[in-house]
Amino acid sequence: MEKFKITFIPDNKVVEAEKDRTILSAALSAGVYINSACGGDGVCGRCRVIVRKGSCAMLPTGSISLDDKKRGIYLACMATIQSDCEIEVPPDSRVEFEQIASGQQDRRLAGFYAKAEDVEQADLVPQVQKFRHVPLVEKIYLELIPPDLNDHISDLERLYRAIRQARGLQVSHTGLVNVRLLGDTLRDASWKVTATLGRRQGIVELLGVEAGNRSNANFGFAFDIGTTTVSGQLIDLSSSRIIGTKATYNKQASFGADVITRIMYAQKAEGLEKLHAAVMESINGIVQSLAAEHNVDLNDVNAVLCAGNTTMIHLLLRIDPSSIRKDPYVPAVNSMPVVRCNEAGITVNPRGLLYCVPGIASYVGGDVTAGVLSCGLDKADAVNLLIDIGTNGEIVLGNREFLVATAASAGPAFEGSGVSCGMRSSAGAIQKISIDKKTFAVSYETISRAKPRGICGSGYIDAVAQMLKAGVLDKDGRIRQIPLRVRQNDTGREFVIASREDAQTLEDIVITEADIENIKRAKAAIYAATVTLMRRLSFEFNQIKNIYIAGGFGTSLDIRSAIAIGLLPDVDEGKYLFVGNSSLAGARQQLISDDAVAAAGDIASRMTYLELSVEPGYMDEYMAALFFPHTDLSRFPNF
Amino acid sequence: MEKFKITFIPDNKVVEAEKDRTILSAALSAGVYINSACGGDGVCGRCRVIVRKGSCAMLPTGSISLDDKKRGIYLACMATIQSDCEIEVPPDSRVEFEQIASGQQDRRLAGFYAKAEDVEQADLVPQVQKFRHVPLVEKIYLELIPPDLNDHISDLERLYRAIRQARGLQVSHTGLVNVRLLGDTLRDASWKVTATLGRRQGIVELLGVEAGNRSNANFGFAFDIGTTTVSGQLIDLSSSRIIGTKATYNKQASFGADVITRIMYAQKAEGLEKLHAAVMESINGIVQSLAAEHNVDLNDVNAVLCAGNTTMIHLLLRIDPSSIRKDPYVPAVNSMPVVRCNEAGITVNPRGLLYCVPGIASYVGGDVTAGVLSCGLDKADAVNLLIDIGTNGEIVLGNREFLVATAASAGPAFEGSGVSCGMRSSAGAIQKISIDKKTFAVSYETISRAKPRGICGSGYIDAVAQMLKAGVLDKDGRIRQIPLRVRQNDTGREFVIASREDAQTLEDIVITEADIENIKRAKAAIYAATVTLMRRLSFEFNQIKNIYIAGGFGTSLDIRSAIAIGLLPDVDEGKYLFVGNSSLAGARQQLISDDAVAAAGDIASRMTYLELSVEPGYMDEYMAALFFPHTDLSRFPNF
Repeated sequence: MEKFKITFIPDNKVVEAEKDRTILSAALSAGVYINSACGGDGVCGRCRVIVRKGSCAMLPTGSISLDDKKRGIYLACMATIQSDCEIEVPPDSRVEFEQIASGQQDRRLAGFYAKAEDVEQADLVPQVQKFRHVPLVEKIYLELIPPDLNDHISDLERLYRAIRQARGLQVSHTGLVNVRLLGDTLRDASWKVTATLGRRQGIVELLGVEAGNRSNANFGFAFDIGTTTVSGQLIDLSSSRIIGTKATYNKQASFGADVITRIMYAQKAEGLEKLHAAVMESINGIVQSLAAEHNVDLNDVNAVLCAGNTTMIHLLLRIDPSSIRKDPYVPAVNSMPVVRCNEAGITVNPRGLLYCVPGIASYVGGDVTAGVLSCGLDKADAVNLLIDIGTNGEIVLGNREFLVATAASAGPAFEGSGVSCGMRSSAGAIQKISIDKKTFAVSYETISRAKPRGICGSGYIDAVAQMLKAGVLDKDGRIRQIPLRVRQNDTGREFVIASREDAQTLEDIVITEADIENIKRAKAAIYAATVTLMRRLSFEFNQIKNIYIAGGFGTSLDIRSAIAIGLLPDVDEGKYLFVGNSSLAGARQQLISDDAVAAAGDIASRMTYLELSVEPGYMDEYMAALFFPHTDLSRFPNF
Repeated sequence: MEKFKITFIPDNKVVEAEKDRTILSAALSAGVYINSACGGDGVCGRCRVIVRKGSCAMLPTGSISLDDKKRGIYLACMATIQSDCEIEVPPDSRVEFEQIASGQQDRRLAGFYAKAEDVEQADLVPQVQKFRHVPLVEKIYLELIPPDLNDHISDLERLYRAIRQARGLQVSHTGLVNVRLLGDTLRDASWKVTATLGRRQGIVELLGVEAGNRSNANFGFAFDIGTTTVSGQLIDLSSSRIIGTKATYNKQASFGADVITRIMYAQKAEGLEKLHAAVMESINGIVQSLAAEHNVDLNDVNAVLCAGNTTMIHLLLRIDPSSIRKDPYVPAVNSMPVVRCNEAGITVNPRGLLYCVPGIASYVGGDVTAGVLSCGLDKADAVNLLIDIGTNGEIVLGNREFLVATAASAGPAFEGSGVSCGMRSSAGAIQKISIDKKTFAVSYETISRAKPRGICGSGYIDAVAQMLKAGVLDKDGRIRQIPLRVRQNDTGREFVIASREDAQTLEDIVITEADIENIKRAKAAIYAATVTLMRRLSFEFNQIKNIYIAGGFGTSLDIRSAIAIGLLPDVDEGKYLFVGNSSLAGARQQLISDDAVAAAGDIASRMTYLELSVEPGYMDEYMAALFFPHTDLSRFPNF
């Protein structure tokens, strides 16, 4: 097929495009993001571009006046390329997300942004549940029988028939824009086309038709949208292969560290819009960089599946989250209908579908559903426990008979945020620490063996455990005075982990008493929630088979250290299984299997929610846990 | 509820609106038509208005810059009314359909536009098929149980649950815009709301939620979109009551009289767009005038159901119809998926649904399906015949076992178009004529007993029959010379039906030899098609129980006259049943019953199509019928 060279200005990005491809599609391939609010229906008129050189073709549309036409203005979604072109994308037509003014960022976050580089996260979830390969969006190559006088059904019905014959799928919806393009596409392609089919709540939608065999050019993104961290995976939907994984801080962190602060910020003028724009910047950053790294055309990204807590999903979709924090704590939506990616603002194929994993309650969202799914709690005979350590800690107890979840606000310390030298688990993060009992000399291990840049969540857990063991830290969280290693800062003492000379940093990498206090509160919240949930359901830890520990800790978490600081209960270590980001794993499973979607729906409808704020005893448990490892030492006989 | 006075400029239209109602909704109520390409999703940014006085509230949106905001610019679909307001609708934001330049209209059509006034068409179809009242869009009043700590499912699931409990309907889709508005609506309305539910291809979509009980404010339009005439009916969906009926000429007539000319015009530059705009003007004219006459708020019009021939449906949806006239005559679509009314350009509730009756082939469209449905051909044990006399004449033979359709291009004469004094069957149309055999004096009857303004289809049939009987016309179609009554014009003779003194017209109302020639060809095409279809299926007319005669003839058609001119076969008159606009009746039945939609789908899938152009004998039949009543007089023994 004839190919043309298309230059987009002012970016000066160049891409090759086939004849008759739309400008919008060519721009996406070039990494130029054009506004397309209506999903390429040609109705919103927001994707206006100026063809400076070369020739494009377009059916007349009410959105372009004769005067516009004379000025070379076209709708990018409707105009097709007919020669080499130079195309200007004016500012109004660009997708530009509001920048977070640096003044609004707090000192620590500003530091993270400077330091954080995106590295792959390991996929640690054991494949407890296997699902059939039934991706939510499929591409099917079809060689249609051309019509003749004896077989003169319409173009659309001919395509539907071929799809039924090939896959047994009954298409029940096709947008008008695709019907309008169908006749020409089929005839130009000599009836050999690839149909893109999306599953949405029990029905199948025809999302697009392309000339030739493009059945392998079909991609999707799975996302875990955390309060502090956004993790995304690019998936080849034709093979289920993971192409790449990236994580980044959720840029909403500038507006508050936890969901409550975010909800309050959303009530301010333009607050909701700003929060939405911030998370979109994080998501689109991952989308664009993974696609660019792996040479994936964003036009071929047809599905995005997001797991996230209830507030995150509201903000992702720009839905007012205010009722979440008002008695009786009811969200606008737990089980979100499928919408188009571009309705939320995700820069992939404008007709691509956006799926959100159903949540259970205001403080137990779809990320928990996804975690339960990937760990297989819902299918096991034995009773298992899942502890997801994040800014909002979530704990689920159950098996195939019952599932009960609870949540506790832990703060972002375990994600390396809100602590003085914290960072995400990416290259250069200190993730393992040991302290010599005699000399107090520190040895550490960093991710990717890079020069140390900061400490990630698992590093902090190790550090506190080692400081306790070496006697640097007392059980109350105060740092002992130790020459050379411990010094005074403005608010208390700090322990030096790595000197600025050893590290790549401007300052020494330290742990302060304020950091220890943060970590103590975080671990107390999660421990107290776990114990309260167990007691409420009259379970003892010895009745539990597996305890799955999830969280964005990168590749490792030392369970012994987590018990030593009182984050996890002191039970047989053999019960523990560190599973990494179980929410992301569950999101991916759903993206590539409609069966997993059904299972997630089943989990969300079965799981019940225990609200800790009205639970007698929770506050006492929390107060008792504000000690290393616990005020009741008999609970931690091995430490 | 608090109400405010809203003035729209420059129209100076005033309407009362409740607090928190959107500007778009208030404008629709005032009869001011604002562009809303995205269906009120707040994404297309085309509904910008300027609030000149008073106060409106709006969540921030990327479509409105800070600068816009300072200038008082709001999106009409997102901004809600908070006080008395004066709102300017700038030209860019208005729905304005391309005007057909008067130079493009031919003389005869210009005359029609001047004359045509819309009067109600009688509904003559016997209710052969009764369907349950299951309107395609339903409004349900619900009193939700407010959430508490023990019943804390989300707002959306609470609403879904209430809908399930009230109607057993499982909602499977809700647009993001409705999810965004839901929380506030439910709480402001104290959980007493009306849900609007649309059925679309087996699933149920939540189209909107309003405060309070508005279950009776639910309307729809049924349309028959003919090549020459567009007929529409406003229906109260809550009761199935017909509120009003109107017909008007299809403004596409300026671009050609039949479907072939229109398809050819669509291939010209901007041709498709102009044809689309023209039919939209006709449809929206009926929508707006019926709604205004009956005080129906266009926001409450949630469904439009269109029957039309295949070309008309393509042009309605701006789908290229070119493949219809190219061998092997395959349309882009016969069974059109449900889309939103505003995607086509119909000015009702922007989320309202547009349904098109499925067609069978390029020249047998959904109008035939609707006609078969309303006459009940598909359910009868006996074999019946349906003859729909329009610009495209369609004939269907069949019963519950089989259905075969054919079509013949008859031209618009029977719709009062393309003939010198023709008009639609509206007030002042001569519909019955008798001629004294001795004096040749003419007596006539007009619709609504108004002064005569022209002759409608049934009037022409009567006139030709009476002229033949009185010997004014010979069997070849030539007018005899009769003093005072017959005179010479430029191209032949003409017979005076009513003098300009008796009529309200500038010229005498006459029938010319050219008119007779038009009518002869039209009747020959339909008769020949009927006979060819019967012969092909080896049926004799005495094996047929009922012959349904359909067409836009207003209230009456003299079957005896139709036989006398050779339009209908000379068989027992007791077999004939004049049913008026059977397509419109079938469209209405589907609008108010999902069961009828299923039945129509069944008809379309079962009906086969006989292509006359490849049928041996059709041309001979046609040539033999170019005589009054027929060259073979033995076929018309009674005339």
